[in-house]
Amino acid sequence: MIRIGVIGQSGEIPAETCVLAEEIGKEIALRGAILITGGTSGVMGAVSRGAKQANGLVVGILPGDNVEVANEYIDIPISTGLSFDYRSLILVHSSDVIIMIAGGNGTLGELSAAYLNRKPVVIVEASGGWASRVRGMAYEGSYLDERKWVKLDYANTAAEALDIALSRI
Amino acid sequence: MIRIGVIGQSGEIPAETCVLAEEIGKEIALRGAILITGGTSGVMGAVSRGAKQANGLVVGILPGDNVEVANEYIDIPISTGLSFDYRSLILVHSSDVIIMIAGGNGTLGELSAAYLNRKPVVIVEASGGWASRVRGMAYEGSYLDERKWVKLDYANTAAEALDIALSRI
Amino acid sequence: MIRIGVIGQSGEIPAETCVLAEEIGKEIALRGAILITGGTSGVMGAVSRGAKQANGLVVGILPGDNVEVANEYIDIPISTGLSFDYRSLILVHSSDVIIMIAGGNGTLGELSAAYLNRKPVVIVEASGGWASRVRGMAYEGSYLDERKWVKLDYANTAAEALDIALSRI
Amino acid sequence: MIRIGVIGQSGEIPAETCVLAEEIGKEIALRGAILITGGTSGVMGAVSRGAKQANGLVVGILPGDNVEVANEYIDIPISTGLSFDYRSLILVHSSDVIIMIAGGNGTLGELSAAYLNRKPVVIVEASGGWASRVRGMAYEGSYLDERKWVKLDYANTAAEALDIALSRI
Repeated sequence: MIRIGVIGQSGEIPAETCVLAEEIGKEIALRGAILITGGTSGVMGAVSRGAKQANGLVVGILPGDNVEVANEYIDIPISTGLSFDYRSLILVHSSDVIIMIAGGNGTLGELSAAYLNRKPVVIVEASGGWASRVRGMAYEGSYLDERKWVKLDYANTAAEALDIALSRI
Repeated sequence: MIRIGVIGQSGEIPAETCVLAEEIGKEIALRGAILITGGTSGVMGAVSRGAKQANGLVVGILPGDNVEVANEYIDIPISTGLSFDYRSLILVHSSDVIIMIAGGNGTLGELSAAYLNRKPVVIVEASGGWASRVRGMAYEGSYLDERKWVKLDYANTAAEALDIALSRI
Repeated sequence: MIRIGVIGQSGEIPAETCVLAEEIGKEIALRGAILITGGTSGVMGAVSRGAKQANGLVVGILPGDNVEVANEYIDIPISTGLSFDYRSLILVHSSDVIIMIAGGNGTLGELSAAYLNRKPVVIVEASGGWASRVRGMAYEGSYLDERKWVKLDYANTAAEALDIALSRI
Repeated sequence: MIRIGVIGQSGEIPAETCVLAEEIGKEIALRGAILITGGTSGVMGAVSRGAKQANGLVVGILPGDNVEVANEYIDIPISTGLSFDYRSLILVHSSDVIIMIAGGNGTLGELSAAYLNRKPVVIVEASGGWASRVRGMAYEGSYLDERKWVKLDYANTAAEALDIALSRI
């Protein structure tokens, strides 16, 4: 089974981002992959809802010990007892490929961790937040430093994101 | 969904322990709970095989980054990128209740972590290793120190272990 | 520089244990080693006070992010942002040798982690708690499982504990 | 005691960056603060050398279990047994303020972790790598997302970096 990690904006997200995240979740399930997220709100909630609508399997790598922080679509809550930053690393290590949708600083940190651990990342570029800023800040638009460990990929639709993600594994 | 963590001997285990672990895995699945283990061999492999025979859902919290160390019954490999000791803590934090079968020093450490985090533990007493030694070493046969944070329970059969485990959540 | 980790009872400790821990701290400093503890109260406070009285260097591997939990003798507070159990593993990994004085369940977990990581441990046997119970529970009085990864040592005085500890590095 | 974390480029660094890092290390020691780094090469080695030249106290939060990876200026090696990314979080949590010099993707991840944990960061802007790119990529040149948790500061000299760092604690 392929494990696809989705990282992105927590908290409130625009309706458009929400629809996009749901479509990606659905696509992940339809392609037979497991969805892994940080398990809480925003993009994490929307992508999980989409995956469940298509009968997917959804894992949430949660901060702290309280499963109550998990969104309602999580099948497997992994309550790590760790703070947000440490738990994000477990999410990255446990994913075969990462899809990035919108995102604030926490998502930026996860992107960096993915690159450090040589995980392929597909960035849904039009989704706002850091996802829309990465190309402008990256080395040659594609790398997070001069070592060029992993080439970042960009996608615009759910289907395209999944096509690229699955081709990178 | 209830998450039952099973801790116990890795590597080669006696045939009797293997049968017992399989029965417990089957019982976990039949009762509708998720099985979480450290994902490798010995008791972890046998209990996972039992759970899969009854169509259960099996999570493995793996050391390191290589999913190849997972036994073949794992549905969800969480490859933490951590060494054995750190990953064991994630297993304990992510379980609602723990069942202990046989076990060497690694299992002893997990037992201690469970007690620290106030997780109920059911010890399958006749299974050998530390599971058979705990009562003799524990305070009043039931506690890991004078603070008496959690009372250890003992069981002899798979059905009894599950009855007690589910009653403690 | 040699790094000696001291593990043991937190909270209130008997006057006798306190004196012993102080002597051990002093001895650690006099032998030119760095003292590393979990940084809080009980044995950790007493051993740190002893080390400072002899102008030693004292590191505290703290749970959480608040340095206020550190005892007043810590030179270097490492506030890990982690809960007690995870932070204890950092203490164990960062020590060349471990001395165990008294101790409840948390100390038992640290002892197990030390053994797992092949760290030599000197147990001050008369100090109460798990330190006084280990020999009775251990395999052949000296090992934490049948693999015999590390032989546990026992000492009765501060000088003896240090002699053994330094001989094991 | 104030703990100043320095993050920056590992491996080979330009002579100019090396001189600057050394000056900052010296300044940290002269101001009476403890220096904490990731303990290995590049900026971490240079800043540690500077601090030792001024008789400072230098802590290295090392990846893995082998203290041999530490540079020769470390007084206190904390060998965490963790991979690079997890150990970087301990460095960030354990620092009262962070100074960033040059840096590749690992440093970018540490910057993000600092912001997440509300640690003030002083970026030595002319030092190259991400330190020279942050202002251009940050929200309003000063924040890592719209929540504006911590305002990033910029400095050009060692003295200025320390003045700002100490004013932010």
